Amino acid sequence: MIAAHTLSTRFMGSTDNYDKADIVMVGVPMDFTCSFRPGTRFGPQKIREVSVGIEEYSVYMNKDLTDKNYYDAGDLDLPYGNVNRSLEMIGTACKQIITDNKFPVFIGGEHLISLPIIKEIYKKYGDELVILHFDAHADLRQDYLGEHYSHASVMRRVCEFVKTKNIFQFGIRSGTKAEFEYAKANTNMYLFEVLEPLREVVKNLGERPVYVTLDIDVVDPAFANGTGTPEPGGCTSAEMIRAIYEISKLHLVGFDLVEVSPGFDPSDRTALLAAKLIRDVILSV
Amino acid sequence: MIAAHTLSTRFMGSTDNYDKADIVMVGVPMDFTCSFRPGTRFGPQKIREVSVGIEEYSVYMNKDLTDKNYYDAGDLDLPYGNVNRSLEMIGTACKQIITDNKFPVFIGGEHLISLPIIKEIYKKYGDELVILHFDAHADLRQDYLGEHYSHASVMRRVCEFVKTKNIFQFGIRSGTKAEFEYAKANTNMYLFEVLEPLREVVKNLGERPVYVTLDIDVVDPAFANGTGTPEPGGCTSAEMIRAIYEISKLHLVGFDLVEVSPGFDPSDRTALLAAKLIRDVILSV
Amino acid sequence: MIAAHTLSTRFMGSTDNYDKADIVMVGVPMDFTCSFRPGTRFGPQKIREVSVGIEEYSVYMNKDLTDKNYYDAGDLDLPYGNVNRSLEMIGTACKQIITDNKFPVFIGGEHLISLPIIKEIYKKYGDELVILHFDAHADLRQDYLGEHYSHASVMRRVCEFVKTKNIFQFGIRSGTKAEFEYAKANTNMYLFEVLEPLREVVKNLGERPVYVTLDIDVVDPAFANGTGTPEPGGCTSAEMIRAIYEISKLHLVGFDLVEVSPGFDPSDRTALLAAKLIRDVILSV
Amino acid sequence: MIAAHTLSTRFMGSTDNYDKADIVMVGVPMDFTCSFRPGTRFGPQKIREVSVGIEEYSVYMNKDLTDKNYYDAGDLDLPYGNVNRSLEMIGTACKQIITDNKFPVFIGGEHLISLPIIKEIYKKYGDELVILHFDAHADLRQDYLGEHYSHASVMRRVCEFVKTKNIFQFGIRSGTKAEFEYAKANTNMYLFEVLEPLREVVKNLGERPVYVTLDIDVVDPAFANGTGTPEPGGCTSAEMIRAIYEISKLHLVGFDLVEVSPGFDPSDRTALLAAKLIRDVILSV
Amino acid sequence: MIAAHTLSTRFMGSTDNYDKADIVMVGVPMDFTCSFRPGTRFGPQKIREVSVGIEEYSVYMNKDLTDKNYYDAGDLDLPYGNVNRSLEMIGTACKQIITDNKFPVFIGGEHLISLPIIKEIYKKYGDELVILHFDAHADLRQDYLGEHYSHASVMRRVCEFVKTKNIFQFGIRSGTKAEFEYAKANTNMYLFEVLEPLREVVKNLGERPVYVTLDIDVVDPAFANGTGTPEPGGCTSAEMIRAIYEISKLHLVGFDLVEVSPGFDPSDRTALLAAKLIRDVILSV
Amino acid sequence: MIAAHTLSTRFMGSTDNYDKADIVMVGVPMDFTCSFRPGTRFGPQKIREVSVGIEEYSVYMNKDLTDKNYYDAGDLDLPYGNVNRSLEMIGTACKQIITDNKFPVFIGGEHLISLPIIKEIYKKYGDELVILHFDAHADLRQDYLGEHYSHASVMRRVCEFVKTKNIFQFGIRSGTKAEFEYAKANTNMYLFEVLEPLREVVKNLGERPVYVTLDIDVVDPAFANGTGTPEPGGCTSAEMIRAIYEISKLHLVGFDLVEVSPGFDPSDRTALLAAKLIRDVILSV
Repeated sequence: MIAAHTLSTRFMGSTDNYDKADIVMVGVPMDFTCSFRPGTRFGPQKIREVSVGIEEYSVYMNKDLTDKNYYDAGDLDLPYGNVNRSLEMIGTACKQIITDNKFPVFIGGEHLISLPIIKEIYKKYGDELVILHFDAHADLRQDYLGEHYSHASVMRRVCEFVKTKNIFQFGIRSGTKAEFEYAKANTNMYLFEVLEPLREVVKNLGERPVYVTLDIDVVDPAFANGTGTPEPGGCTSAEMIRAIYEISKLHLVGFDLVEVSPGFDPSDRTALLAAKLIRDVILSV
Repeated sequence: MIAAHTLSTRFMGSTDNYDKADIVMVGVPMDFTCSFRPGTRFGPQKIREVSVGIEEYSVYMNKDLTDKNYYDAGDLDLPYGNVNRSLEMIGTACKQIITDNKFPVFIGGEHLISLPIIKEIYKKYGDELVILHFDAHADLRQDYLGEHYSHASVMRRVCEFVKTKNIFQFGIRSGTKAEFEYAKANTNMYLFEVLEPLREVVKNLGERPVYVTLDIDVVDPAFANGTGTPEPGGCTSAEMIRAIYEISKLHLVGFDLVEVSPGFDPSDRTALLAAKLIRDVILSV
Repeated sequence: MIAAHTLSTRFMGSTDNYDKADIVMVGVPMDFTCSFRPGTRFGPQKIREVSVGIEEYSVYMNKDLTDKNYYDAGDLDLPYGNVNRSLEMIGTACKQIITDNKFPVFIGGEHLISLPIIKEIYKKYGDELVILHFDAHADLRQDYLGEHYSHASVMRRVCEFVKTKNIFQFGIRSGTKAEFEYAKANTNMYLFEVLEPLREVVKNLGERPVYVTLDIDVVDPAFANGTGTPEPGGCTSAEMIRAIYEISKLHLVGFDLVEVSPGFDPSDRTALLAAKLIRDVILSV
Repeated sequence: MIAAHTLSTRFMGSTDNYDKADIVMVGVPMDFTCSFRPGTRFGPQKIREVSVGIEEYSVYMNKDLTDKNYYDAGDLDLPYGNVNRSLEMIGTACKQIITDNKFPVFIGGEHLISLPIIKEIYKKYGDELVILHFDAHADLRQDYLGEHYSHASVMRRVCEFVKTKNIFQFGIRSGTKAEFEYAKANTNMYLFEVLEPLREVVKNLGERPVYVTLDIDVVDPAFANGTGTPEPGGCTSAEMIRAIYEISKLHLVGFDLVEVSPGFDPSDRTALLAAKLIRDVILSV
Repeated sequence: MIAAHTLSTRFMGSTDNYDKADIVMVGVPMDFTCSFRPGTRFGPQKIREVSVGIEEYSVYMNKDLTDKNYYDAGDLDLPYGNVNRSLEMIGTACKQIITDNKFPVFIGGEHLISLPIIKEIYKKYGDELVILHFDAHADLRQDYLGEHYSHASVMRRVCEFVKTKNIFQFGIRSGTKAEFEYAKANTNMYLFEVLEPLREVVKNLGERPVYVTLDIDVVDPAFANGTGTPEPGGCTSAEMIRAIYEISKLHLVGFDLVEVSPGFDPSDRTALLAAKLIRDVILSV
Repeated sequence: MIAAHTLSTRFMGSTDNYDKADIVMVGVPMDFTCSFRPGTRFGPQKIREVSVGIEEYSVYMNKDLTDKNYYDAGDLDLPYGNVNRSLEMIGTACKQIITDNKFPVFIGGEHLISLPIIKEIYKKYGDELVILHFDAHADLRQDYLGEHYSHASVMRRVCEFVKTKNIFQFGIRSGTKAEFEYAKANTNMYLFEVLEPLREVVKNLGERPVYVTLDIDVVDPAFANGTGTPEPGGCTSAEMIRAIYEISKLHLVGFDLVEVSPGFDPSDRTALLAAKLIRDVILSV
């Protein structure tokens, strides 16, 4: 089993048996490299806490969580301020889940957590692996404030091992000039829009293994205000829910949802949106 | 007159003469059966308080409140925690208003308050009565946590006396599988969308008596964050304003707006939206 | 075991074995009869959540939680809005704990929850039972808004079976004239002050069984702002911590701490104070 | 009667008959000259709104509001941004109240509102008039940012007509060097402390007419956080409550309580303290 | 140079050399005539503070701030509560900037600040001057609560010297009947919509000098909740960003963005939107 | 000069000339090792921002800032998430200030920032150096969650080079059993109390060089709610202000104030208290 807190709130309907679960959820309360406003460490707990406020049945998917077996392992017990050790612990957790042939769902925390996860996923699926990246920010910086590992450089780090033509980026609307030039030359980046380009991309992916990394700030801050670096001009929550429906047609091999920072959202609608998206991903597996 | 608080803030432009009023507004500060986050008891006062921040003239309706006579009776003095006595008091208030041939506008409070109101309305109009129900949630549960009377079962209770084919539900996006099956078999439910299906429905209602019950969470929580059980994926405030314009073409016999919970909305935009919708309903009568 | 939520956050250091525990904690998320501002239902979870922010060792008591065996049963699954059924469930939980010869610690929720608890405690200890009641409010109303069971009448209900001369009330500073007259004639009430009169009372209680009910609003709202009916003019948090130290000298048979309403306290200092007081009570047993 | 809003919340227990009232309360929602953080315009309404959360009986005074006749005239309808016209309107309101031989209670709003009130009081009582001024700030500036009329210069303006030896200032802990030098040479200023110097002063005032102006920031911001210019190092709320008890022994001829700014206090304890102080002043008349 | 605070936070990337700058930004922390909820005085500082959270490169404009020379002069040191002197100071600042042949960018504060700015701009460009006005409110009142100068009458004051047929108003959805009648007879007003009518207007303006005044409340409060008088039913932030792109095709001679009131927006998305819009205006010059 | 942000708000009255200054203030926005609730990175800016709300004259010290020369260097530009590089940068800044014979005032950020500062101070003053440590927490852990450098171990690290008998700790009320045993054996620790033991200690320090490190959580969270790990049971703000007055009698050689986390304090009273304490320290030099 995953070495995580065992006395905290679990996602609605989670089983308490790791072995029988097909899907394993892990919270990653890491926000140390965040440069603007910290607080995503509280994301996983808030998402679980509000998950009781949504239904187990999804009318979008016409499926019910009661038909699924998933285990919420709680939050990893990270050493605050130690980036390297934290990334190692995340990678180890992911490795175990996929070794046990379970579907990993990671809940951030900051976007940097996706790096060790995708590394492990890539080890298993190799160059067939497709990455769908939903984000307001390109996250393609070479480094950030002199740091190699940062939530602003995570996708650039991913580009160092995943084939960049297998990386699809949606909803991007912020970055340096250099990042957009890099994207043009290497990845598949769709500016501003999410649902329409996704529908096109989905058509061509067939049975290839697909990993999805979803930074909640791809959604406009009107709908997802609880995030550290809100970027006006994004898609609606309804569009993002439909995007998950599109993704459910694919051969999904892992998922993470990051950058929910509940302290900025007194209404909890961001965490509720995250809980709905996670529910619909679980229903897709 | 209605037995309600007499020393609290009134809706902008309210007359102080019950007898001369054509329309009577009543606040219902009830939130006892709420299972997630209480606070709708403060809805009516907040809506009145912010009503001074909007104009008496509506450019949507091209009408002005100064041409209308309405009386705001204040909040009912409910016994906190006693559901049965509270429902009785609400029903009594409604009965008196319609007996006096005035148009009732009730402001919640939780959605359960609509039950005794619709019962009284039904007694007057019988099987001709049409119910337009705007909500994110189906509210069609047989019971909830073992309780017969709950804000999650209110429309199911209504279905026990109103002809279910006369019930139209708009914007629904959350419920159990059983609720959606019940809706399919009995009521007229339109998933996700509000304005387009409403336009179709309005065409066929002619001069029939129509009661509207509007749960503010039908609007997306980006626009109406001040509510207890926000459900991402809803319509915009602009659409809801236009929906009231559509409704103004009908033979309206009563209206309630429920589930505004101002504590979750530091901007007060939810209460302001509610105040605009109530203004335009008053202008429709 | 107690029928309570099993997938939510537990108090710091709680064992997961009911049978081996000497002390059992139960959360009671009830706030239905609250007349002013609801929200105490979130008290138990917040107190547990912040408990990780305090130390297991108490320098006040010079003892450590690691030397104690206590089980946090989670929150009772109450039917929202049904006062009678809720009170029954609370009483049943308390009965089981004391039948199993364990020490009960209940965390509210509103003050009305103390009634069924004290009833069960009284059944066991009879007229020897002493009640120490810490509160800003007398809670001695005959009824409240016509309701017999209310957080404003809870101690009056207790006076109907516990010998009133065995009831000691500290820190009281708010009530009707009738309540203060009743107290003068029946209970032992100390106005405004907590620590000094307590020290006197403690001297005379010897080995008698003592139950403590602590409404957090006895502490001044500067120190305990997270409560529903704050009443300026109370004691400091340091005084309340020392009061628990005084109480630790007695033969304690049960404890409840009520009326923490975390939504009014962005700093969480009220829940942290509650967690410290509960820790020191556990260390006293 | 006073020309004020008539459709807003009234102070708990207010009569609706100006003529029969012995005491008249007026809200003054003025915060235009505030230099730091505006928001005191919402003070009067919040104080009234929370007043239902306290008891009509005061155990401090052993008196009950039900034995008093007071009329809450609502808020004055001030022209926002026009200081001169606003001060005129406040003075006119005060003049009418004292002409009608009623006791005036004004609720701010910023401290500048006390100026026209004290002017009218002074016209009636002349050089016998004593002013008790409770405040964290000296408010004795000659002018402020080039403005003659400011909340930071209000007591200096008062010193231009009231005999300065009749002015007693309590709890002062902030000001320019020049202000403290002026105070030393002219008024009676007590640094930091409130209750002890007040007890001394009260002894010597006999039957002289006394006006009290109470800036809530005299109380430490731990107890009165809802204010625009919080100044750490003040007295407790319990001390201020006792100060009002001391004042009740005097021949009180008018009272104002200013600078409650509810937006900074999610717990409403500042407004609740203000409501208790106002209640006890009413009980003193 | 402009007489403004020199020790406060500057807009991201601002030069510290007024003389070499082509563009000068000035903050105007004025909110005295605001009738509903004050707080826009904090707008300029918050917009600067969050500006570090956005990129210097705009993918919308495909331009980078590093290629521009702009000087942020800080906030004007206004005399709080003195409307006339404040308007004079704003006019003086504007006059100097345009005399020095620099492009003025003013950040409010309330909408009334636009009046002295437009007066100075008009003196330079005369009857050729075109005004584009983005707002939820018509701002065409003859006066407001008896006051000639108010944020609700600012455009009416502008109409007294700018040719009204040169005034284009977008997104308007609130006003009195008289304001809409005045607009129909005099200005060019587009109800509700922003982007589509703007595209039409832009086509016809050629090389004429254009001044833009942007009240952030033209954007729906879901996207721009941090404002004093939110008005549901507006455009999205994405539309407003595209509107600036349209405007960048014109001969822009000055710009102001007003009515950001950060206290109502815990997520800071309103200030972030304002910072993005200002960035794109700077990139347009 | 110090390499820090140059375009952000400065402390009230700061000169813009490093060379002529006797005192240099530096903000250190570090909160990476914080285990509970991050946010102290915003402390320095908030303290500067609110400093305009206090007076330059201190009636406690009877001195005026206008008679002092101090330079606020702004915030250090730290690499987020890199603890080692950050500690180096802080040490370098401190070294330069004391090399230039100026008095250093550091504003945190988390408590770990004191370590490199005290190291540099110790290099200059050696074993004569006295440390006065004000804190709710002992901060004497050997390590924390496996990390050597943590805000919970900072004083233990200091004990590795400063003579422990020269370390005086005040107000401590939280820690592990091991920390209190270590303190008993090594440092001089005063439990709970601040002012009385300080007065005793001050008497014996004569002309020895004294460094003061002040964790704002030594003050009770009622008075200083804006902090990451609030610990009920502390001293009042008035006591802390008097403590600084006591300290002003000593030969002070450096000062830091840490752990202000403004996001938890809507009233800003914590930052205002910090600003007053810093003002009085500057006046002491």
